[in-house]
Amino acid sequence: MADPATPPRLTRRRLLGGTAVAAGAAGAAGIGWGAASLTRRDHDRDPGLDTVAFYGEHQAGIATEPPGHAAFAAYDLAAGTTREDIVGLLKIWTDDAARLTQGMPALADTEPELAARPARLTVTVGFGPRMFAVAGLDQRRPPWCNPLPPFTIDRLDPAWCDGDLLLQICAEEATTVAHAVRVLSKHVKSLVSVRWVQRGFRNAARGQTMRNLMGSVDGTVNIAPGTPDFERLVWDDGAARPWLAGGTSMVLRRIAMNLETWDELDADGRALTVGRTVAEGAPLSGGAEFDEADFGAVDRYGIPKIPPSSHIARAHHAHDGERFLRRGYNYDDAPAPGHVSNSGLLFASFQRDIDTQYLPVQQRLAEFDALNQWTIPVGSAVFAIPPGVPGPGGYLGQQLFEAAATRN
Amino acid sequence: MADPATPPRLTRRRLLGGTAVAAGAAGAAGIGWGAASLTRRDHDRDPGLDTVAFYGEHQAGIATEPPGHAAFAAYDLAAGTTREDIVGLLKIWTDDAARLTQGMPALADTEPELAARPARLTVTVGFGPRMFAVAGLDQRRPPWCNPLPPFTIDRLDPAWCDGDLLLQICAEEATTVAHAVRVLSKHVKSLVSVRWVQRGFRNAARGQTMRNLMGSVDGTVNIAPGTPDFERLVWDDGAARPWLAGGTSMVLRRIAMNLETWDELDADGRALTVGRTVAEGAPLSGGAEFDEADFGAVDRYGIPKIPPSSHIARAHHAHDGERFLRRGYNYDDAPAPGHVSNSGLLFASFQRDIDTQYLPVQQRLAEFDALNQWTIPVGSAVFAIPPGVPGPGGYLGQQLFEAAATRN
Ligand code: HEM
Ligand code: HEM
Repeated sequence: MADPATPPRLTRRRLLGGTAVAAGAAGAAGIGWGAASLTRRDHDRDPGLDTVAFYGEHQAGIATEPPGHAAFAAYDLAAGTTREDIVGLLKIWTDDAARLTQGMPALADTEPELAARPARLTVTVGFGPRMFAVAGLDQRRPPWCNPLPPFTIDRLDPAWCDGDLLLQICAEEATTVAHAVRVLSKHVKSLVSVRWVQRGFRNAARGQTMRNLMGSVDGTVNIAPGTPDFERLVWDDGAARPWLAGGTSMVLRRIAMNLETWDELDADGRALTVGRTVAEGAPLSGGAEFDEADFGAVDRYGIPKIPPSSHIARAHHAHDGERFLRRGYNYDDAPAPGHVSNSGLLFASFQRDIDTQYLPVQQRLAEFDALNQWTIPVGSAVFAIPPGVPGPGGYLGQQLFEAAATRN
Repeated sequence: MADPATPPRLTRRRLLGGTAVAAGAAGAAGIGWGAASLTRRDHDRDPGLDTVAFYGEHQAGIATEPPGHAAFAAYDLAAGTTREDIVGLLKIWTDDAARLTQGMPALADTEPELAARPARLTVTVGFGPRMFAVAGLDQRRPPWCNPLPPFTIDRLDPAWCDGDLLLQICAEEATTVAHAVRVLSKHVKSLVSVRWVQRGFRNAARGQTMRNLMGSVDGTVNIAPGTPDFERLVWDDGAARPWLAGGTSMVLRRIAMNLETWDELDADGRALTVGRTVAEGAPLSGGAEFDEADFGAVDRYGIPKIPPSSHIARAHHAHDGERFLRRGYNYDDAPAPGHVSNSGLLFASFQRDIDTQYLPVQQRLAEFDALNQWTIPVGSAVFAIPPGVPGPGGYLGQQLFEAAATRN
């Protein structure tokens, strides 16, 4: 209700003009998440009541500042599901999300009181490759909306892969996430089955970058919401597929960390693996966290300061169009028998075109990345993220399904 | 480092005198958790830096306000473990906990930066029944330190039961919990194996009572830290077992909720099941949440306003000595195939004597409790909680092991 997301343009003006204190701070320190991070926040009021706007050109949960908790849930459509069923499901999800994100119970919410603390809840809906086929809309499926090709580094468990529909549910409080996942799941349970649910978390001081469970500062180099780069690299412009204007794509990789062997590496070894210092997250070419990495810098023996095999050297975009938004979460599940931990990263990226932006980077990393010795991709999924719902009355994916109804 | 827990006596004086704003609010609303909740908190500083004192007469994590996240981890001692091994392990845990809770890395912490946000971290250590036998100290095992007897309502899965050693790790941030669990687990991995790890969360507005995932206000009637009742009912006085003076016991029950069928019940049905209204958590005998329930109140037809079969009517203490501290957490794990949810309560209670305080209540609930139709105990464990470490140089459980060394 209070604290709705600021539209990107205003946010950007604020960021550049530095009119808001928070904007100044965030702009200097980090990537300047577009919405909630840059709006005024009253520290005396209960942050559990903060909300992020649901309606808008884009779905929330992408350009909006990632809160402390997330659940990613994938659903499979039941056999015999029709296009009308899917539209019905999307209308339910739209209505539920419009209410829950504003701190109001869903229709027929059996635990309405659990909706009272939205805690910046966002609900982001995605379409898996098979959804298009089931809906008879395969001709509208974006060419990049396909499972990623197999990589030699993969040890994929089908239990963490694929899915016809996705919900990304983020909030500052775990109870809010639990309630939203449950409401959204059960309201459509006659049409879908739960394929997987992956829960994650991230924490950092205000204006600072989170750390992953390897201890590294994670998320420094990213594209800042509200910038022209972000608009161009994340949001589809609808040229090829009008229905997708304002939408994007999501790649979710569940990447396990072998913390047992990572432990054997000291801070120097870790820095050389990542290409950045552990303590500050500063590039090994020098400077502070947000100074640009100089991949050409060499020491007095002519040896590159940032090893060419390091994660950032391999992951760095070969050209401007190879960039994407990373918005991942840590996971830490109960260890399997005989193990000490079961931790990793729910790597989530958003980009307009997976094939041109994400794949070249992922291929480079799969070919070689010093970090691969300690990280194992165990899950992989790809979703088309439809645009936002402009206002009450519309539903998520409407542009896709209505175009189909009239032009198909 | 800042914001250490206030000793109970001072806290209580504050509570009664109402000198601190926070104390006044918490005192009026809830049970008045002894430590962090009633100490001054500066809202402008980063709450991720708040700490709870480690040293003291009692272990932290019992009388201290429960933060948003918890992990309960149980360990089994490896075959051939000696008493000296256990002492060594406890010294490691003591040293690690003393540092981590104050925002300092553990010795040889491989991710020291993850220790920088203690976020009110507490580490509470417990001894399972078999630990005493392995240590050759069975004669010092409290008589109540035994697995609970089986109840007809139980559907226990051994994967969630028992354990030789317990860590209860609580903090406001999930990353802090993940790091502490990992550090404490791996530093002793040659001596123990992880038996289970259970993660939970709880959220509420400042000064309000949390809600469980059935939507009920949960934790209203409890014994307030700092009160004479609490001192008497929770902390052992050492009369029977000198080593346990200042210690207590913990019962942990993992109780699954059948939210699918709970959904079929409306708010009135839920109120009659619990004995309290859903919206306010007020007793059905009338008044507000913190007004005392009147179990004798009847309506004009002579029917009890609080059904005798309701959870609170059955759980209410038959006499003053049947009370204990409840300090539970919600859990919400990934659903099993074909299911919509996997949610419940990590019911944790602390009491001086399980047999006299907890068991009669649990037996009454097992015999009959309207709530049983929707709740299923799937895990059960019991631990003796040694006293706190008074200051640097001591270790957790020292009183138990040193008495053994000299008198055994
Ligand atoms: C568990 C797996 C991974 C870990 C622990 C990890 C960690 C990191 C860290 C610590 C950084 C440096 C700080 C920063 O700029 O954020 C980084 C940068 C980056 N990572 Fe990863 N990463 C992982 C997987 C991936 C994957 C799968 C991709 C894409 C396919 C990726 C793409 C990038 C990119 C593009 C950068 C910025 C590179 C630059 O400096 O230009 N990462 N990652
Ligand atoms: C999933 C299982 C359980 C749920 C959902 C649950 C929920 C509740 C709720 C909503 C209340 C009323 C508010 C309050 O005073 O906290 C309550 C009270 C209480 N519960 Fe439970 N509870 C569960 C299991 C247990 C167990 C296993 C015990 C002990 C063996 C227990 C002991 C109590 C006691 C002593 C009270 C206070 C009764 C009084 O008014 O004097 N509960 N519980």
